Amino acid sequence: MKKDRATIHDIALKLNITASTVSRALNDNPRISDATKKKVLKVAKQINYQPNHIASALRSGKSRLIGVIVPTANRNFFSSVIRGIEELANSLNYKIIISQSYDDFEKEVQTVEALLNARVDGIIASIAKTTENVDHFKKVLEKGIPLVLFDRITNALEVSQVVIDDHYGAYQTVDHLIKNGCKRIVHFTSNPRINIYHERRRGYEDALKDNGLEVDPNLIIFSNLQLEDGRRIMQEIIDSKIDFDGVFSSSDYSIMGALQVLKENGYKVPAQVKIAGFGNEPFTSFTEPPITTVDQKSIPMGKITAESFFELLNADSASSVAKKTILKPELIIRKSSTNNS
Amino acid sequence: MKKDRATIHDIALKLNITASTVSRALNDNPRISDATKKKVLKVAKQINYQPNHIASALRSGKSRLIGVIVPTANRNFFSSVIRGIEELANSLNYKIIISQSYDDFEKEVQTVEALLNARVDGIIASIAKTTENVDHFKKVLEKGIPLVLFDRITNALEVSQVVIDDHYGAYQTVDHLIKNGCKRIVHFTSNPRINIYHERRRGYEDALKDNGLEVDPNLIIFSNLQLEDGRRIMQEIIDSKIDFDGVFSSSDYSIMGALQVLKENGYKVPAQVKIAGFGNEPFTSFTEPPITTVDQKSIPMGKITAESFFELLNADSASSVAKKTILKPELIIRKSSTNNS
Repeated sequence: MKKDRATIHDIALKLNITASTVSRALNDNPRISDATKKKVLKVAKQINYQPNHIASALRSGKSRLIGVIVPTANRNFFSSVIRGIEELANSLNYKIIISQSYDDFEKEVQTVEALLNARVDGIIASIAKTTENVDHFKKVLEKGIPLVLFDRITNALEVSQVVIDDHYGAYQTVDHLIKNGCKRIVHFTSNPRINIYHERRRGYEDALKDNGLEVDPNLIIFSNLQLEDGRRIMQEIIDSKIDFDGVFSSSDYSIMGALQVLKENGYKVPAQVKIAGFGNEPFTSFTEPPITTVDQKSIPMGKITAESFFELLNADSASSVAKKTILKPELIIRKSSTNNS
Repeated sequence: MKKDRATIHDIALKLNITASTVSRALNDNPRISDATKKKVLKVAKQINYQPNHIASALRSGKSRLIGVIVPTANRNFFSSVIRGIEELANSLNYKIIISQSYDDFEKEVQTVEALLNARVDGIIASIAKTTENVDHFKKVLEKGIPLVLFDRITNALEVSQVVIDDHYGAYQTVDHLIKNGCKRIVHFTSNPRINIYHERRRGYEDALKDNGLEVDPNLIIFSNLQLEDGRRIMQEIIDSKIDFDGVFSSSDYSIMGALQVLKENGYKVPAQVKIAGFGNEPFTSFTEPPITTVDQKSIPMGKITAESFFELLNADSASSVAKKTILKPELIIRKSSTNNS
């Protein structure tokens, strides 16, 4: 059985090159000449050296590129997930190229085409807010190209998905606001067809109910959750004289806008109104008061997303390993929501 | 000369298809079948229809992808430039794929390889802080692939470049601080081999000199300009008892850190210390006080960068159109630097 335990050092010895060169050749590193790669693979076969790497090195026409589609790379959450994906991918000698949908359905369809054009070996995506159907992703699967979704997922596709427990994150936040005295909590939400907004709203409603509070539809406001949306909605609520003592937003951007408008209107945060966002964007710790929010575990999410992707890439049949991973987010309590300030 | 005035409607009529399909076929739209494209191009030739489009549609093996390399897409400046590039590119039926160098030389070399692997028609790049040589970009030029640089450029490459007038932006800012009473202004800067930091430092020094103030090397501090760097440096300066009444940072992130530490140490901003950053990151308007900064005209920069790129792509010889465009940045004055607050 000696042949089965062959190492890269055996190959290196036979060819009078370093083990590191052998390793790079087996990983299809572009810095190694094709001639050396061929020699290494030939010897590797002769002495029955058989790690997973060979299979991928022998696979022809691979670009070693993974396409990542995000609504926008200019969000701490998405850029951190990409970083997590990139770290694992780079360690396996894969490179990441990013394409942005700008939360636009038509653009998302085009980005999928662009990535296929770039001959990516697979696609990792978070779906646009306005996406109406997933035919463009079905085309990817029909071509036998691995696809993994994260955060903004859909049940219309049988693929591996990585999400956080949005219901849990929202529930924890609203429960915390209630424990700090809030009874009339406004909720900023968005398109209920997007799983994350639907789940966060469910978490909000369940926390109210479990604490014996009424769910008032007048306090649940739909928008695109941008800073300007938060500003506009907060001003409308103030003008309407609706009674409220807390705001929980599904996005840090709209809660930032709400905080500005509350202060402009003379409200004391947190003394009169307690607020919390979702996403842990860096600016939430820069504001006065700093804003309570939910951290989405973006780096682990990126790592696990990449792991799911490579499982799929190395599997014989795609469907056999499709799985859903759910991560627990973390409530970050800051001054904006607490009594002792 | 009737043949010279042939339109897409003539082609549509001959093939019994819509003008819009003809237009898409001529633009090599992936939604149009190859068979239709061939027919359209054949008829276009027959009737001597000759807009620029044909040349590009006839060019074989084009991916209609432009690779964009940035240190990180998670900066308002870079993401806005990308957006500007993307708007023009998309209108010409080109798609953008992004690759991040994370300001790491080795990674930058790999991103260039990855984009070439993706068969991009050209590359637009902003150079990493740690880049030591530009051989990887020279390889791109040797392959005849168009290359345009923006913001973080280098004189070692004969290519089109788009920058802002960093000297002007810094000069305006420091002159403004002096006019508001500052006499001892600390400057946060970074690697002087990077043009933008070198130019901003020159602007800082020239504004001091032109106002009859001394340039004190003890007040010029080098770092990576992250938030943590700003925190550390500010604390060191306070601890060292060096006399200062203003801080001008080449980055909004490090001035943010400095503001936090100043406040933690009981300094009043702007009453005792006036501060200004560079970049106009959105969070600079969220802080208390809001931070004076320099807007880098990112959307126009993206648009002009893309225009330079397409000029190059459509030119016969690359070197004939290489040019440098310099945009004027804009000083955004906020509370952190003014007396009347």
